[in-house]
Amino acid sequence: MKEIGVGILGFGTVGAGVVEGLIKNSRLIAERIGVKPVLRKVADIDLKTDRGIRINKSILTSDAESLINDPSIDIVVELIGGTKIARKFILQALSRGKPVVTANKALLAEHGAEIFAAAAANNTEVCFEASVGGGIPIVRALRAGLVANHIDSMYGILNGTCNAILTRMDEDGMSFDDALRQAQAAGYAEADPGLDIDGIDTAHKAALLASLAYGFHVPMKQIRIEGIRGIAQTDIENARSLGYRVKLLAVIKNHPTGIEIRVHPTLIPISHMLGSVNGVFNAIMVEGDVVGQTVYYGRGAGRYPTASAVISDIADLAGKLAAGGTDNRPPALAWQKKPCKFMETGQANVRYYLRISIPDKAGTLAKVATILGRHHLSIASVIQQEKHAVCGKHVTVIIVTHEGHEANFQAALHDVNKMGIVGHKTVSMRIEDLGVARS
Amino acid sequence: MKEIGVGILGFGTVGAGVVEGLIKNSRLIAERIGVKPVLRKVADIDLKTDRGIRINKSILTSDAESLINDPSIDIVVELIGGTKIARKFILQALSRGKPVVTANKALLAEHGAEIFAAAAANNTEVCFEASVGGGIPIVRALRAGLVANHIDSMYGILNGTCNAILTRMDEDGMSFDDALRQAQAAGYAEADPGLDIDGIDTAHKAALLASLAYGFHVPMKQIRIEGIRGIAQTDIENARSLGYRVKLLAVIKNHPTGIEIRVHPTLIPISHMLGSVNGVFNAIMVEGDVVGQTVYYGRGAGRYPTASAVISDIADLAGKLAAGGTDNRPPALAWQKKPCKFMETGQANVRYYLRISIPDKAGTLAKVATILGRHHLSIASVIQQEKHAVCGKHVTVIIVTHEGHEANFQAALHDVNKMGIVGHKTVSMRIEDLGVARS
Repeated sequence: MKEIGVGILGFGTVGAGVVEGLIKNSRLIAERIGVKPVLRKVADIDLKTDRGIRINKSILTSDAESLINDPSIDIVVELIGGTKIARKFILQALSRGKPVVTANKALLAEHGAEIFAAAAANNTEVCFEASVGGGIPIVRALRAGLVANHIDSMYGILNGTCNAILTRMDEDGMSFDDALRQAQAAGYAEADPGLDIDGIDTAHKAALLASLAYGFHVPMKQIRIEGIRGIAQTDIENARSLGYRVKLLAVIKNHPTGIEIRVHPTLIPISHMLGSVNGVFNAIMVEGDVVGQTVYYGRGAGRYPTASAVISDIADLAGKLAAGGTDNRPPALAWQKKPCKFMETGQANVRYYLRISIPDKAGTLAKVATILGRHHLSIASVIQQEKHAVCGKHVTVIIVTHEGHEANFQAALHDVNKMGIVGHKTVSMRIEDLGVARS
Repeated sequence: MKEIGVGILGFGTVGAGVVEGLIKNSRLIAERIGVKPVLRKVADIDLKTDRGIRINKSILTSDAESLINDPSIDIVVELIGGTKIARKFILQALSRGKPVVTANKALLAEHGAEIFAAAAANNTEVCFEASVGGGIPIVRALRAGLVANHIDSMYGILNGTCNAILTRMDEDGMSFDDALRQAQAAGYAEADPGLDIDGIDTAHKAALLASLAYGFHVPMKQIRIEGIRGIAQTDIENARSLGYRVKLLAVIKNHPTGIEIRVHPTLIPISHMLGSVNGVFNAIMVEGDVVGQTVYYGRGAGRYPTASAVISDIADLAGKLAAGGTDNRPPALAWQKKPCKFMETGQANVRYYLRISIPDKAGTLAKVATILGRHHLSIASVIQQEKHAVCGKHVTVIIVTHEGHEANFQAALHDVNKMGIVGHKTVSMRIEDLGVARS
């Protein structure tokens, strides 16, 4: 059976998972694809730490460039992470005409244009199934399975850390801070959790999904990003009593006026399939104009799910190389020639959940309603909670709105907060009904 | 841009959907794949009926063989259905070295070995994304996305007609007969509904899924098949009160002792993602040894979802043909060389829901429990419903068991029914907990 040489840059968590998976299931993979991917070298600056994997020591090297230049290596797998050295090594491999597999969403979201141009210039390709949704084969679904479809919308729960924190808050009544600390102790949130909880990682993935679907590189500045930092337990509870769960959601919609991309904590119906995505799991709902609604679900991160996706790319490339080279498809992320039209952020149609603290005095709620009305926003429901003895002079009002322009909401929120009477800054979260009928 | 000629055999519901999709989204598809699939001929015996699609009349023909032999046609799409003439045309196309796209699960499940051998002999291939799960790209997920994984288990809701009937029974309290009549009136159940409601269609799809995952052709006789005919409303209600929904489930598990494949009405946890798959939707849960649990969801049948999948295969083949030919992968359904080991049906470990009608007399329940115990079966919970005035001398007992051998259950059920005291034949359905912890 024909052998295809594989070299891995980065022997960290994911790198070790890929090595383990390739060794453990190598016979199975070869039987399935008719080609044998053979691990020829693994490069890392740390060759001391025991990864708990039996591996022939002679294939370990600290010299990444020798791996890239090794003529016995046909496929280069980048699992270093970050956007500096990873970018350099990927560009080097591509310049040698070697296809690259990477799980690096940050790099592709920020330097995708350069990297895919380099791949095209060298008549090779970059595969990145592991970069969105971990083990879920969503990149393939968009590139191949749904190739016949204009993509109308995508909704994704794309960050396992955020989803695990929100699940703990919802199921165990935990505060955000406690849930974050627990996630850090359990090892699935970083000491510096900003990339996850501030929504950056989700935005990177949303950029890749939009780029796959619409064929344009998406500048990060086109994405409105809000994280989950400091979501209050009371908002989780209010959402539940209204029939919603709070998820950090990537929202991608294709409008006649342009493409809309947002990432923010969002109320979604408990009864919707995405509402039951808990813990570190990810899910992506894709609506196509031919296929209708589809959903993809699985573990979004971690050693093995990511390894599964990386190995699927290695297998695909090995099959193509054995058959005589890669196909001539346009680049995955930017197959469109014309420039992309993005929707202006303020033009998005959204519904809002608002938690407003107002004085317990006749006429105050009317003032809030008047401000909303002045900005063409109408109220779907109101819950005024009874004043708690210790809360002082303010009561909490929960307002759920009908759809309105994002810009109007921002203006209205500004006006409400500067009335000079609210007890705290108004808490607001967007609602996405995901096609579930409202009662 | 390079053009690849497409010919379609069968201008029925799905054929018309493929024609419509190919025409409507042809530019988009070409932009994405860098090749233009061009519809060159459509063959059907009925050229009169208006399909409601603008199509150049000159490409319509009643001569299927001329389409197959047309040198301008590179890909033959079989959408006739059935296992006779479809088989003949597919073998003809393959003998000309032309790749074939089909949605015909019955044909592949029953004649897959012959068809894939013919494809291999002629150095070409058969694509069948539409044959399982409609628009859901599950074939690709198993062939490519999860290629790194041993598949531990698969659970599928694979027949939209059955799922729609069970959903009506569950949500509207409808009887089976009424729900079936409604499905027939709405056009998504056939006048002769046996293929759907007796589980045959689901079994065909289960055979293809198992074959994709394990690399063996699966003889239909290896599958234990039970349909949903005559499920009682009371069983749907009992299941709900126990925290379960009744679904026609395909169950595929890989045991050290062999592969287990079953199709039957099954109680699955309401809280599980598959429990919220309603109406004509399909879903497949796949557990791999590397990736863990993944789920795929979408419309399982109908003109457009099926067309989406058929076109995805056309696009894949067009890309490969334009790049110089198909790859040399082993056949999708049977990449294994050694013979397959199937688990003996009786050896399956299952839990059961039992509805037993026994005389309202001291000691009768003890007799039933004794029979179960004699067959090494233990009881997890019992609900004895109070005797209803009009029900005569019998009361209904619901028993939920712990896990036991299928063969023991069959023997125990036989013994219970021949006690000579049961009011009606005992109703039994298997339970699958799908990883949800039991309280």
